[in-house]
Amino acid sequence: MSALELKPIARIRNGYEDKFGIPRQPGLAAVRSVIVFEPEYRVREALRGIEGFSHLWLIWVFDRSQREDWSPTVRPPRLGGNARVGVFASRSPFRPNPIGLSCVRLEGLREGEGGLELVVTGADLMDGTPILDIKPYLPYADSHPEATGGFTDETPRQTLKVEIPADWRQGLTDEEAQALTDILSQDPRPAYQRDPERVYGFGFGGMQIRFSVAEGIARVTEIRRA
Amino acid sequence: MSALELKPIARIRNGYEDKFGIPRQPGLAAVRSVIVFEPEYRVREALRGIEGFSHLWLIWVFDRSQREDWSPTVRPPRLGGNARVGVFASRSPFRPNPIGLSCVRLEGLREGEGGLELVVTGADLMDGTPILDIKPYLPYADSHPEATGGFTDETPRQTLKVEIPADWRQGLTDEEAQALTDILSQDPRPAYQRDPERVYGFGFGGMQIRFSVAEGIARVTEIRRA
Repeated sequence: MSALELKPIARIRNGYEDKFGIPRQPGLAAVRSVIVFEPEYRVREALRGIEGFSHLWLIWVFDRSQREDWSPTVRPPRLGGNARVGVFASRSPFRPNPIGLSCVRLEGLREGEGGLELVVTGADLMDGTPILDIKPYLPYADSHPEATGGFTDETPRQTLKVEIPADWRQGLTDEEAQALTDILSQDPRPAYQRDPERVYGFGFGGMQIRFSVAEGIARVTEIRRA
Repeated sequence: MSALELKPIARIRNGYEDKFGIPRQPGLAAVRSVIVFEPEYRVREALRGIEGFSHLWLIWVFDRSQREDWSPTVRPPRLGGNARVGVFASRSPFRPNPIGLSCVRLEGLREGEGGLELVVTGADLMDGTPILDIKPYLPYADSHPEATGGFTDETPRQTLKVEIPADWRQGLTDEEAQALTDILSQDPRPAYQRDPERVYGFGFGGMQIRFSVAEGIARVTEIRRA
């Protein structure tokens, strides 16, 4: 086998319009995503029994992070963007085969324009990302709470407090406010930028969000609807 | 994106010469496998820091289970091979994109003929299977002991006692005996065959193994070296 050709079976729909803003690992924000099957795979029977599983694996394509060449080492944001680790010791998108792996929570099934769709939370995929496979999460084979997490063990995640001033909060639904809080609490700034004066921006759910971070607090400074 | 072309980065080497005999999920047998990188990916730096992780994900190709077409439902062995579930509610190899996902334990690195190689246990891949990606297992994102396992929850795995008569045991190394015991304890019979008179056979580690099962005991009846 020299090369393998794969076809997307589905695409994810959510508000993540920008790479900047997406949680760096799945499960970190309760943002709701919908998995819409490609026409060829809109077969209800293919999902029979899936509602019995609380979690699913998504295997997907880093379609907006592809580079011509691969680099043996990467600089994970978790290490401040300076230290290098091997690409196979990281979950970096810049890999020989640009495949992503994410565990999401299955919230339910719904009838949508694309037939039967899956509603999930915790996905770290940009809007429109092609999905290659969906598998049930099997706790007896997949759950290893005792596993050691290499460099990620030594650099615990820092979360931020989030402030959305009332002027901006009033324009948001509760779900939008929750999603935005989750996203900002994960500190979506590029790892090597730590300037309290700086205003950062990203797109989410049809909005342009601007925020700054000082003393452990992410404060929304502007929300503009597209 | 219409189709994505992927290239194997490595191949697995172990004794699993036969599909029959391979555990049905990863982690169920302590058989040792070696991951040998393809020449293009024999770059030591790509593994920097990997020894800090106790578990790895392998994303691989079901290269010996491919069919022309996909079927929306499959009959998992766990349900006795009769009941049908949706392909996306199963880990069956017969999927729209023939991708496998397995969590293995990283036992160490070694220098081999293929340069730096990874030694792992718990892989459920046949000898020679092409691997597309290796990722570290991140317990904070990947471990969900509370997850519900759908139909797999209601049909707990049955394990067998294993008997290897002394005549056959004396020809085995300790590691071979352990591997064989692990494999047989998982009951590698096809799910729909339950005949106590029948002798089953499979290849493992250069040996042809024959065994029968009666009253919860798998008994080795013959071991022949190739």
